[in-house]
Amino acid sequence: MTDKKDAFVTEITPQSQDFSSWYLDVVRKAELADYTAVKGCMAIRPYGFAIWELIQQELDRRFKATGHVNAYFPLFIPESLLMREAEHVEGFAPQVAWVTHGGNEKLEERLAIRPTSEVIIGTLYAKWIQSWRDLPVLINQWSNVVRWEKVTRPFLRTTEFLWQEGHTAHETEAEAQEETLRILDIYKEFAESVLAMPVMAGAKSESEKFAGASRTYSIEALMGDGRALQAGTSHNLGQNFARAFGIQFQGRDKVLQHAWTTSWGVSTRLIGGVIMTHGDDSGLVLPPRVAPQQVVIVPISRGNWQETVLPKARDIQARLVAAGVRVRLDDRDSYTPGWKFADWEMRGVPLRVEIGPKDIEKQQVVVARRDTREKAFIPMDAVEDRVRSLLDEVQQALLARATKFREERTRRTADYAEFSAWMEGRPGFVISPWCGHADCEAAIKSETQATIRNMPFGGDEPSGACLKCGRPATAQAWFAKAY
Amino acid sequence: MTDKKDAFVTEITPQSQDFSSWYLDVVRKAELADYTAVKGCMAIRPYGFAIWELIQQELDRRFKATGHVNAYFPLFIPESLLMREAEHVEGFAPQVAWVTHGGNEKLEERLAIRPTSEVIIGTLYAKWIQSWRDLPVLINQWSNVVRWEKVTRPFLRTTEFLWQEGHTAHETEAEAQEETLRILDIYKEFAESVLAMPVMAGAKSESEKFAGASRTYSIEALMGDGRALQAGTSHNLGQNFARAFGIQFQGRDKVLQHAWTTSWGVSTRLIGGVIMTHGDDSGLVLPPRVAPQQVVIVPISRGNWQETVLPKARDIQARLVAAGVRVRLDDRDSYTPGWKFADWEMRGVPLRVEIGPKDIEKQQVVVARRDTREKAFIPMDAVEDRVRSLLDEVQQALLARATKFREERTRRTADYAEFSAWMEGRPGFVISPWCGHADCEAAIKSETQATIRNMPFGGDEPSGACLKCGRPATAQAWFAKAY
Repeated sequence: MTDKKDAFVTEITPQSQDFSSWYLDVVRKAELADYTAVKGCMAIRPYGFAIWELIQQELDRRFKATGHVNAYFPLFIPESLLMREAEHVEGFAPQVAWVTHGGNEKLEERLAIRPTSEVIIGTLYAKWIQSWRDLPVLINQWSNVVRWEKVTRPFLRTTEFLWQEGHTAHETEAEAQEETLRILDIYKEFAESVLAMPVMAGAKSESEKFAGASRTYSIEALMGDGRALQAGTSHNLGQNFARAFGIQFQGRDKVLQHAWTTSWGVSTRLIGGVIMTHGDDSGLVLPPRVAPQQVVIVPISRGNWQETVLPKARDIQARLVAAGVRVRLDDRDSYTPGWKFADWEMRGVPLRVEIGPKDIEKQQVVVARRDTREKAFIPMDAVEDRVRSLLDEVQQALLARATKFREERTRRTADYAEFSAWMEGRPGFVISPWCGHADCEAAIKSETQATIRNMPFGGDEPSGACLKCGRPATAQAWFAKAY
Repeated sequence: MTDKKDAFVTEITPQSQDFSSWYLDVVRKAELADYTAVKGCMAIRPYGFAIWELIQQELDRRFKATGHVNAYFPLFIPESLLMREAEHVEGFAPQVAWVTHGGNEKLEERLAIRPTSEVIIGTLYAKWIQSWRDLPVLINQWSNVVRWEKVTRPFLRTTEFLWQEGHTAHETEAEAQEETLRILDIYKEFAESVLAMPVMAGAKSESEKFAGASRTYSIEALMGDGRALQAGTSHNLGQNFARAFGIQFQGRDKVLQHAWTTSWGVSTRLIGGVIMTHGDDSGLVLPPRVAPQQVVIVPISRGNWQETVLPKARDIQARLVAAGVRVRLDDRDSYTPGWKFADWEMRGVPLRVEIGPKDIEKQQVVVARRDTREKAFIPMDAVEDRVRSLLDEVQQALLARATKFREERTRRTADYAEFSAWMEGRPGFVISPWCGHADCEAAIKSETQATIRNMPFGGDEPSGACLKCGRPATAQAWFAKAY
């Protein structure tokens, strides 16, 4: 039993040895995703997809509660249409997959597979929006998109990925800005309360803006290896796309004017964020709110356990299901309890309930936490309440631990030599004064690989001299090496 | 007011004048879908997509209750892989959209955009399935697929469409057959109880089988114009795909053997089915279980209605929401009640609640049914109960009406002259004896445009001579002109 367990766990590379290998091992061993016959495209396996379904439910509920509705737009964008917004083309054209043939015929015009849908949606909004009475339009789409990537990694960067993309149109600039920030707030609250992943919400620099946007905001998380992950973006598109695609409406003042639009999205990349925020050398650690199974019940298989222990285990399962807990009873008889313990730990199930003949005698069960590995006896008749409160505790503890981790890895310096030395490793965030000029930003990136993740709201007022050039600082920027 | 209403409704072509124009008018006016810049691709607008979301929820619940889980597989299939199952290629290759370039580079091998996913999933099942212990695999995918169609029609036949595709693998032939029929049962029960659309469930003829299947089953509905609609299919794939893609497992007897697989799907075509099963000359008629709004409340805007009527309308809205009813309060002040009545009728909302100053005096509201146009007064304090029971009544009545319609349009003949004469129009189903030979089936199709929809379970035993050739009949086949 011990041998089997050890053999199993050692198949995951320790984080300290090679974080990147650890990540790929976890993705594969926990059956979250698999490689396919197409380079850069992954299959999301049922366990990984169940996490995505929970993410979708939580976000979809928040979008709908704030007045958004879902729709579906075509996968294809004619080449001429994609070319219409200049910055947008420049940003996306190098990454586009092109359809040139349909059936046995060559197409007259190539079709891009959507890398994002501003263009195709813009042409439809131009038809649908005529009057200020038609505004705001608040539409979200859950879909696949394709970006031809050279280097890929499951969930973090793949040629095809799943995401949601919101596209809204407004009467005024102020409303569009309000929407952009409302969504950023939703993303932050969702990331922290559901994924237990603390994020910094703030504005991107000009050079990191979405192609075609007026302003881009992001949420940025810190992964277990000290690299940052952009976990969601929200763009105020100004009137740029409205001008390119003719989204015009007659205003309250009877004057024809261009709408103000926004777009925003998060993707299956969030699953990568969860893995790298909470995981450890035993594998995945899932926050209860996105755990497909929040509890696994493992009956201790001694003697005639199928007659004695199993019925009691089923009873507890039924009671937990009735209490709204996602629970799995592992009644497989071809594996030992020890093997099952390691297997479910690797899959990150937040709580394990063990029940054996002695426990039944004492009217108790054992509950083991995945995050702290603490074990406790709990009385059988209080199992629903205790399990539910333990799940809440785990959820909170994971957020607290990740927040502490980020705080310990967020430092400040105004000294470029120190900054550069720190960036040799993967130090987490470094907050430094920046002059606001793209040339400094680019030089810092090329010399240290560090990029400005964002300039968080409510951060310090800019003061002092730019880290790099010594000109007066216009912002305290959060730098990091990023995924 | 009357003028506006009439003007509005007359924009929909009457069914009797041109059913096809009626259909397109309803799709457009009810804002279910819209054409896009790409030929044959539609945008599903929020109102249409909300119907799809309800369909998804209902089906997803049924799939999960029978042990299925969701996953996601790549959009792309390398050409060489698609070519591996001979019949499958022959069936789908003429309809495939091909990606030839990624970014600025020509691909070494063309990539097909999935027309269906047996191939890509088959290669992964070959990796995932090793032992009988890994079976059954019961996976479903919600996704987009692309088939290059020459003639398209929103929801019914589009180049890109949304669907679910189930793909399962089993230890024995019997289990695969059981799964194939279990899903067909789910489809039938769902179509009838949720969409209020009666369907015949049965086996397809050899020539109408899915490309690569051993046996194909379908559910077939009858549309308002007397044409049949294939509303869902379930395929027993035998060991065909397992052989082509190497899905092998070590059996309980330690012998390496091929798995038995199935696949099955329904698509956004179901929305077209709902439109054409229930709609009338005023527009859409939605069964309550797939109506995005089951009730619309229209306050009668007389005098200072915003101070008197509106608060009461809001109160009723809140009570209906609390009772689990999907309800919309139409408080727009730029439209008259009469205009709103016609607008919501056109959008097929099952129940309209009217409330005016007199109703408030009498502590009542008016409820109007979309399906029968009956109006009734109901006491204000019983509004939740009465609305819920009326919604049930409407749901049942729509199914009963559609079932009666189908029965009236299902006839029998063994005489080919009579059969041919009937098929000049759009007569509904004609049940006729058939010899089971593909040449007869093909001749009937080319001479009358009628195809064998399926051979329903529990139908009559075959008897007599084939309609076409006079050889002994092997089945009583259901013929129709079909979408």
